[in-house]
Amino acid sequence: MTVELVPGNTLITATPQEGRELAITMARKTIGAMQPDAEVRQVLRPGYATSADSLTAAGHVVAVEFATIAAANNYWRGDSV
Amino acid sequence: MTVELVPGNTLITATPQEGRELAITMARKTIGAMQPDAEVRQVLRPGYATSADSLTAAGHVVAVEFATIAAANNYWRGDSV
Amino acid sequence: MTVELVPGNTLITATPQEGRELAITMARKTIGAMQPDAEVRQVLRPGYATSADSLTAAGHVVAVEFATIAAANNYWRGDSV
Amino acid sequence: MTVELVPGNTLITATPQEGRELAITMARKTIGAMQPDAEVRQVLRPGYATSADSLTAAGHVVAVEFATIAAANNYWRGDSV
Amino acid sequence: MTVELVPGNTLITATPQEGRELAITMARKTIGAMQPDAEVRQVLRPGYATSADSLTAAGHVVAVEFATIAAANNYWRGDSV
Amino acid sequence: MTVELVPGNTLITATPQEGRELAITMARKTIGAMQPDAEVRQVLRPGYATSADSLTAAGHVVAVEFATIAAANNYWRGDSV
Repeated sequence: MTVELVPGNTLITATPQEGRELAITMARKTIGAMQPDAEVRQVLRPGYATSADSLTAAGHVVAVEFATIAAANNYWRGDSV
Repeated sequence: MTVELVPGNTLITATPQEGRELAITMARKTIGAMQPDAEVRQVLRPGYATSADSLTAAGHVVAVEFATIAAANNYWRGDSV
Repeated sequence: MTVELVPGNTLITATPQEGRELAITMARKTIGAMQPDAEVRQVLRPGYATSADSLTAAGHVVAVEFATIAAANNYWRGDSV
Repeated sequence: MTVELVPGNTLITATPQEGRELAITMARKTIGAMQPDAEVRQVLRPGYATSADSLTAAGHVVAVEFATIAAANNYWRGDSV
Repeated sequence: MTVELVPGNTLITATPQEGRELAITMARKTIGAMQPDAEVRQVLRPGYATSADSLTAAGHVVAVEFATIAAANNYWRGDSV
Repeated sequence: MTVELVPGNTLITATPQEGRELAITMARKTIGAMQPDAEVRQVLRPGYATSADSLTAAGHVVAVEFATIAAANNYWRGDSV
């Protein structure tokens, strides 16, 4: 069975908020694909979630994923401009 | 309840200054989503805010978020060109 | 013989999911080109797969590869918008 | 009072040189927003300014800011092509 | 004599595979320009090629170079779509 | 006197090779702006030029600068396609 890497298999979301949630999910799912053992990921979590630098690095990945998703959605410009 | 990741649920801002503020806020809110415990974030802050490298890394994330926001706003070209 | 760096020699995929799989594969194949000894890569894997920061860094590379692939595919916009 | 994050509140500059200066200033102002205590920033400066890796990381942030500014200015193509 | 930084002095390649090879070569040639002593580079190689994090960082650079090359080639869309 | 950050005050170059040289120069000049003391930079150079990871990080900055320069030049497509 293939691991689901892009929920819904689309980059299109209704809103920036949903796009941001997708970015976080996609970043997490890549980690899951590289370390499929959920127990190991659970072991790593406290160290990572209490390190400012680890959180910043993870936030960076989310920013990069979001850039792609935002472009895919033409920045949701129709929503508010 | 969903965590608000994009304030106002739009990438559109009136000015570059507001776009920059949004970039900082979005970067912070991602950290908040990954480490929801405000007390832990409070504990981490002094170490991070007194490390040049941590600040540079955080500044990098802001730069990446801002790139997306600036593109969304067509670089606010109408403002001053 | 040339190492295959881009499976199928195309960036075009049918879906975001396949694009994401291609991003992971391309990231891995670059590592393979730089460290062609599979045994060495095998030795390195446990340390890397149990370090949150290493996984985040690898996830970042996948995000960058995916940005390129997503642009190549016009973000698969026809799929779902 | 709001901290000024984008001097002049515009990404438009007359020349690449000015765009580059803006990139450096914007990168610095983000650090200032995250660490508003100028004395602390002063304390951090010597360590950072004498570390090749810290300087490279800061240079990277400037490169990312500049990419955005350059795009905003259509790369100042009119200047010299 | 100038060091050759872009083989063939063009970003245009026939295929994604060749584009990827160019990305790896360009990344390497930059290192060569910064550390022109081939013996030093030879000394550094084993440490770097047996560190997962070093390989990931190098893979990241290749991904960034490739993004540029892929855009230059309009993603080789004519090849397979 | 202003430090020259973009030689020639333009991102336009005749060839990819010259674009690459500009990328390296611009990356270096940013470091010079942040650490204006040439003697200090001289002190830092050996450590940096003999660390694979430092060289990779510097190569990454060059890749980012080059992406901007390549876009400014429309990837020099006229040269060879």
